[in-house]
Amino acid sequence: RRIGQPEAILCEGKALADLDAILGALQGRPTLLTRLAPERHAALAAPPKDYDPASRTAIVNGCLPARTGRVRVVTAGTGDLPVALEALRTLRFGGLSPDLIADIGVAGLWRLEEQIESIRDSDAVVVVAGMDGALVSVIGGLVGVPVIGVPTSVGYGAAEGGRTALNAMLASCAQGVLVCNIDNGFGAASAVLRILEARAR
Amino acid sequence: RRIGQPEAILCEGKALADLDAILGALQGRPTLLTRLAPERHAALAAPPKDYDPASRTAIVNGCLPARTGRVRVVTAGTGDLPVALEALRTLRFGGLSPDLIADIGVAGLWRLEEQIESIRDSDAVVVVAGMDGALVSVIGGLVGVPVIGVPTSVGYGAAEGGRTALNAMLASCAQGVLVCNIDNGFGAASAVLRILEARAR
Amino acid sequence: RRIGQPEAILCEGKALADLDAILGALQGRPTLLTRLAPERHAALAAPPKDYDPASRTAIVNGCLPARTGRVRVVTAGTGDLPVALEALRTLRFGGLSPDLIADIGVAGLWRLEEQIESIRDSDAVVVVAGMDGALVSVIGGLVGVPVIGVPTSVGYGAAEGGRTALNAMLASCAQGVLVCNIDNGFGAASAVLRILEARAR
Amino acid sequence: RRIGQPEAILCEGKALADLDAILGALQGRPTLLTRLAPERHAALAAPPKDYDPASRTAIVNGCLPARTGRVRVVTAGTGDLPVALEALRTLRFGGLSPDLIADIGVAGLWRLEEQIESIRDSDAVVVVAGMDGALVSVIGGLVGVPVIGVPTSVGYGAAEGGRTALNAMLASCAQGVLVCNIDNGFGAASAVLRILEARAR
Amino acid sequence: RRIGQPEAILCEGKALADLDAILGALQGRPTLLTRLAPERHAALAAPPKDYDPASRTAIVNGCLPARTGRVRVVTAGTGDLPVALEALRTLRFGGLSPDLIADIGVAGLWRLEEQIESIRDSDAVVVVAGMDGALVSVIGGLVGVPVIGVPTSVGYGAAEGGRTALNAMLASCAQGVLVCNIDNGFGAASAVLRILEARAR
Amino acid sequence: RRIGQPEAILCEGKALADLDAILGALQGRPTLLTRLAPERHAALAAPPKDYDPASRTAIVNGCLPARTGRVRVVTAGTGDLPVALEALRTLRFGGLSPDLIADIGVAGLWRLEEQIESIRDSDAVVVVAGMDGALVSVIGGLVGVPVIGVPTSVGYGAAEGGRTALNAMLASCAQGVLVCNIDNGFGAASAVLRILEARAR
Amino acid sequence: RRIGQPEAILCEGKALADLDAILGALQGRPTLLTRLAPERHAALAAPPKDYDPASRTAIVNGCLPARTGRVRVVTAGTGDLPVALEALRTLRFGGLSPDLIADIGVAGLWRLEEQIESIRDSDAVVVVAGMDGALVSVIGGLVGVPVIGVPTSVGYGAAEGGRTALNAMLASCAQGVLVCNIDNGFGAASAVLRILEARAR
Amino acid sequence: RRIGQPEAILCEGKALADLDAILGALQGRPTLLTRLAPERHAALAAPPKDYDPASRTAIVNGCLPARTGRVRVVTAGTGDLPVALEALRTLRFGGLSPDLIADIGVAGLWRLEEQIESIRDSDAVVVVAGMDGALVSVIGGLVGVPVIGVPTSVGYGAAEGGRTALNAMLASCAQGVLVCNIDNGFGAASAVLRILEARAR
Ligand SMILES: Nc1ncnc2c1ncn2[C@@H]1O[C@H](COP(=O)(O)O)[C@@H](O)[C@H]1O
Ligand SMILES: Nc1ncnc2c1ncn2[C@@H]1O[C@H](COP(=O)(O)O)[C@@H](O)[C@H]1O
Ligand SMILES: Nc1ncnc2c1ncn2[C@@H]1O[C@H](COP(=O)(O)O)[C@@H](O)[C@H]1O
Ligand SMILES: Nc1ncnc2c1ncn2[C@@H]1O[C@H](COP(=O)(O)O)[C@@H](O)[C@H]1O
Ligand SMILES: [Mg+2]
Ligand SMILES: [Mg+2]
Ligand SMILES: [Mg+2]
Ligand SMILES: [Mg+2]
Ligand SMILES: [Mg+2]
Ligand SMILES: [Mg+2]
Ligand SMILES: [Mg+2]
Ligand SMILES: [Mg+2]
Repeated sequence: RRIGQPEAILCEGKALADLDAILGALQGRPTLLTRLAPERHAALAAPPKDYDPASRTAIVNGCLPARTGRVRVVTAGTGDLPVALEALRTLRFGGLSPDLIADIGVAGLWRLEEQIESIRDSDAVVVVAGMDGALVSVIGGLVGVPVIGVPTSVGYGAAEGGRTALNAMLASCAQGVLVCNIDNGFGAASAVLRILEARAR
Repeated sequence: RRIGQPEAILCEGKALADLDAILGALQGRPTLLTRLAPERHAALAAPPKDYDPASRTAIVNGCLPARTGRVRVVTAGTGDLPVALEALRTLRFGGLSPDLIADIGVAGLWRLEEQIESIRDSDAVVVVAGMDGALVSVIGGLVGVPVIGVPTSVGYGAAEGGRTALNAMLASCAQGVLVCNIDNGFGAASAVLRILEARAR
Repeated sequence: RRIGQPEAILCEGKALADLDAILGALQGRPTLLTRLAPERHAALAAPPKDYDPASRTAIVNGCLPARTGRVRVVTAGTGDLPVALEALRTLRFGGLSPDLIADIGVAGLWRLEEQIESIRDSDAVVVVAGMDGALVSVIGGLVGVPVIGVPTSVGYGAAEGGRTALNAMLASCAQGVLVCNIDNGFGAASAVLRILEARAR
Repeated sequence: RRIGQPEAILCEGKALADLDAILGALQGRPTLLTRLAPERHAALAAPPKDYDPASRTAIVNGCLPARTGRVRVVTAGTGDLPVALEALRTLRFGGLSPDLIADIGVAGLWRLEEQIESIRDSDAVVVVAGMDGALVSVIGGLVGVPVIGVPTSVGYGAAEGGRTALNAMLASCAQGVLVCNIDNGFGAASAVLRILEARAR
Repeated sequence: RRIGQPEAILCEGKALADLDAILGALQGRPTLLTRLAPERHAALAAPPKDYDPASRTAIVNGCLPARTGRVRVVTAGTGDLPVALEALRTLRFGGLSPDLIADIGVAGLWRLEEQIESIRDSDAVVVVAGMDGALVSVIGGLVGVPVIGVPTSVGYGAAEGGRTALNAMLASCAQGVLVCNIDNGFGAASAVLRILEARAR
Repeated sequence: RRIGQPEAILCEGKALADLDAILGALQGRPTLLTRLAPERHAALAAPPKDYDPASRTAIVNGCLPARTGRVRVVTAGTGDLPVALEALRTLRFGGLSPDLIADIGVAGLWRLEEQIESIRDSDAVVVVAGMDGALVSVIGGLVGVPVIGVPTSVGYGAAEGGRTALNAMLASCAQGVLVCNIDNGFGAASAVLRILEARAR
Repeated sequence: RRIGQPEAILCEGKALADLDAILGALQGRPTLLTRLAPERHAALAAPPKDYDPASRTAIVNGCLPARTGRVRVVTAGTGDLPVALEALRTLRFGGLSPDLIADIGVAGLWRLEEQIESIRDSDAVVVVAGMDGALVSVIGGLVGVPVIGVPTSVGYGAAEGGRTALNAMLASCAQGVLVCNIDNGFGAASAVLRILEARAR
Repeated sequence: RRIGQPEAILCEGKALADLDAILGALQGRPTLLTRLAPERHAALAAPPKDYDPASRTAIVNGCLPARTGRVRVVTAGTGDLPVALEALRTLRFGGLSPDLIADIGVAGLWRLEEQIESIRDSDAVVVVAGMDGALVSVIGGLVGVPVIGVPTSVGYGAAEGGRTALNAMLASCAQGVLVCNIDNGFGAASAVLRILEARAR
């Protein structure tokens, strides 16, 4: 990418032959593969070695140079983990060493209270939550650093495949929180990289 | 009403002449009028005296006999007040003396913390919130008593006229919270009356 | 749960390894597992013995202490049974002995008429219905006790996966009926436990 | 109309000048004007004399020849009256003498029970209901004659401007009920005229 | 059915064991089974012999007594056939001998023109169409008999699983056409039986 | 415009002061103003003289040079006229002399039949229709020239403010018809100008 | 087709037996089969030889006579290829020799800049894009020839299965761009054939 | 605010008396009032002097201390100005000196090209766009700094009151762009303040 963003390939929805061609043309550039299902990874002509099934990501030609920045990735529930792991892998690919703080949803507020100081002391927080998406509003009201909400498709019925969490984060009563597409851990992490990149200049 | 519920008339959407006829046929029965706009109240043939413009309700032929029960009506923001006041009036009409706890939305969690003990010590809690509706999930996780969420149409854009708060309450990560129609403070209060009525038998 | 609600785990959407870890950390606390498909139950490291495939629930470490309360779970049609059974299992887990009254949808009103007295004589009624969700309105108009509607995803086309029943229950012409998420028998039962818990104090 | 249907003009959304031109070209043919607001009626070049503001209809050049047929137009609530009156006027314009049975919504089932015999003894029933639209399912289950549901935009929030009643009628658990557009009393009456017309041949 | 409608069982969404129980309790009454997939039919304890996979219907204990009535079932395209066949089987079960007129969609208007006289000469017409649903409007404008539109889920993208055809039929510019749920050939046929039943009395 | 398209200003949603500034900077270039309500036109600093309230358009600095091309703008009903007039004015501004063929909706197919030859003999046809939008499918099946559908917001209820006509046109059973935004007569005409422009080169 | 459009069969949603019958009745006419999945192609009684799995199309009885016209089919991303290939095959079937310009989405604007001159020098451009659909607006602003947008279902979450790209193209800030149904490469190509056909007369 | 965010009051949807009370309790704290319509501003008990009708904001008790940071607020069209001005006022209230770059929508890409270097050289960019929202994708692909999209309700029909721009920004093909609620210039600016605040620590 000419703009300094990490190079990434969205594998879902591309034919295997097309993926093979794209991988064959990378010429040694560090590249992140996202939304690559295990059976599709295995079926590639040259399956990348650094593949992580939980986040469905592969890293080809190594990570970008290390950079500084305290980033926390927070999840409301256990079901939000795959999306959080996609964010974590993208951040690591981008040269960071982020922390995961899992399963601190608002239905048990004491869990959040135990972690709030370390969240407050971040350069950016990625908040991954499905269902009501309420964790973004609560954290957004407690910390002054950038808060990036990632709605997930966790939940059923009125959760509407993540649309309810998405809308709740957009309509949040906490000011200045920002939002990504549903299940887009990659996008939230890329935004963190933009924030830290701009700062580094 | 044969089932013991307070008699109520939804005034919105009825012609004035029809309202006059309904009021003329009440024969002294205590009756609550809801969604009665000030200019429509003034235009009735015999405008009820006990009219409250903030909640847009009128009480005709007095309230029902007093009954016991500690009920809290909680709001997230100042904009939710009209709906909360409709709930409060309905509860008073039903013979209760409910408390209002206003403006304790989750973006400022300390406000909720100051009130949580009195909320916990209730027979039922009505939680009125728009935008993200997150207050229902937080209170639902902190108290064991019945929690009734009333989504409001407060907010814009992704708030979708109350649908986002409604869906967030339905998909809440807190278990066993119940929900009413958007802006339906009357319905939430009626449900509280059912709960206390069943208990009294 | 610190608030006295029964501990429960939503199994859908969690990795098997994560479920095994959660179950391994229960330390003897009575716990309800919901939305656990038969093949996923069988694949657990230590499949709980008290598993019921019809309701897709498992009970681990026994039920909560018995408590009193007459609760009816009513269904409109045969297709609504799995959701009703989830509600029944949750109520039993919570220490109650609820009754099931099945298949009394409004298209055959005489079936409802035969059961209405026992429904009227309850502490709470859970009404499970898909398609038009009309049973909630009819029962809500006939009884004065708490009525909790559970819309189901039964039906096709304009049934919209349960959204039509959900909206119809929310917009019900019967006053003071309350609503849960689509297919959420667990939530309705949890709400009944809140109502009976508050009463017991 | 060459097909034998009554000639009708939907006045909403047409410029006054265009309406004047259309009326000027009728050449004595009996014509029904629908959705004609009082102030627009008054502003026409030659306001038709047989104008009824409650149904917002005008009849020009008299009604069609009388025909036989027992038709009932039933409403759930008082707010549904304008739509029911549009149906009644259209039926009268078509040569029938329909009956109105008002305000027998399912929240008070005894009101329906008092009328059910006369409804059962019809050639067709038009059921006008907003909110949950449940009246169509209940009547559809109790009578064997043609049942035509007209959803109305009465209600707020989850009533979705009539879409909930519409979907509930379409997804009705009663078999063989048919549905019109929201607030379309004219359409329901026209369908009754088709039924009676086909029978007369 | 006490109201004289043919007895029918919607098989989709019911457990096989529940279907076996229902079939075992029929006591010789003629009954129609709908939405019964071939593999589910084969898995029943006593698979009904009169099973038709194309319409996914079975007839148990024979059809109802023959009655008179000229009914046409019309389809826009070949993909609409399964729904049309469900309507035809239901009509035959109800004692009628309906005709199928297939594949006369409006994109080739001459096909409709060749059939219009026989359609005009019916007691009722069932019009089955997906995508734009336009055939209902065109036929509704050409014939004076009852027209019942059945939107189908045929199409993709903006066809929205049948919702576009449904809405187009409801908003049709032809007056007095009536509509069923998406893919509900059974419902349309049941409505025809109501129309002919009322006429026969 | 550098691409050769006629310069146009969408006046709706712009402040009057901003419009005055834009008009003041035109430097003699021929420009079309669209969606300019009469009261806003009158309130401009220098109201353009060539203003047409029916189409809500103004032409400033004259039309573009005349060009050849037979274009028909067809409407389904009288209510579609304002959108059709916007298309006609845009075409005239672009140097064409288009014809209007009004009120030939499919509910009266004979009206279309009388005009079909002149429609067939066009370089492009703009079809303006609300409600079911069926006219696009019928014309698209009868002529081989470019057909551009403009859905209008005419209709109520299931017409969904033009979304139903829009979706019906997109899902049309006639092949190769193209669609514009709801009520966008300007856009359809601009597309015609692109077609004729490309041909002229 | 009597109107001169290429004969085409949408294979999705038709039973194999019905397809066999249709193919058997072609009588040597050149015909295009679309949306024919590989396993369905193989299962036909006489699988057409000229089958292309990438575009899921088959050509039977050869292509139409060659005609002139410079047409470009442009895609935003690799995932849009199948839809673009459907358009290309339809154009080739129609006698044209179109060019494919792949993977020039707006997130890397330099790729578009390299191709813009050849796009500008076309008789018509088909722009295939999912996700945000932004490529249509950018190209629409840079070229004066006919631009036909085909939204694809590529993307997830807020991409809404192609509805977002569809709406973005319809609401495009570039004037005079036209739109097809989601994933409808066939429709866009058919529209191009209409444009070139009209020109040829 | 305890978290260091600027104190702000959303005035829309609050009663005037409630606003007067809130303003009376500010005790000299710098506060921003948003969505305050001119006539409501004038009707306050003590109308704040620093009121700007174009952005509908008022600043009470002065701005926050000046801080450094190069922030650009970019708009696609003239209609997006009010939202951009709300962002600009919020940034100024927060101590920044942001630049406005107006009317560089993608339909005229050369306008963007002239400004891209100054946009690239920012600490954060706020991109305000309605209709197709495509400007966010184009800028997101050209610059590496944080990009915050604000969809506006500018447009009609398929613009869906800003939902199309919102979804297009969320589904953007440019990686790492973030999004706010529709018309929420205040929220975007608050997010910029979080980014600069975190950096300053
Ligand atoms: N998981 C993901 N979610 C959303 N966008 C992604 C994801 N992974 C890659 N992308 C972006 O998708 C865009 C299209 O990628 P491609 O189709 O590979 O050209 C690129 O801008 C990628 O940065
Ligand atoms: N504010 C309200 N919201 C919802 N329902 C109401 C309200 N006020 C009264 N109702 C109910 O509306 C139903 C219809 O009332 P009515 O139209 O007056 O017969 C009754 O069951 C009332 O209990
Ligand atoms: N294909 C069908 N579509 C819609 N409703 C049906 C269908 N088949 C049967 N029904 C009706 O579904 C309702 C519920 O049926 P059941 O669940 O069998 O009690 C009954 O009123 C049946 O008449
Ligand atoms: N009636 C209209 N509907 C849709 N777009 C329009 C209309 N009139 C002008 N436009 C276009 O709106 C876009 C934005 O215009 P503006 O806001 O004036 O810069 C331009 O591309 C115009 O060509
Ligand atoms: Mg958890
Ligand atoms: Mg507040
Ligand atoms: Mg049943
Ligand atoms: Mg009433
Ligand atoms: Mg066909
Ligand atoms: Mg007309
Ligand atoms: Mg790419
Ligand atoms: Mg502009």
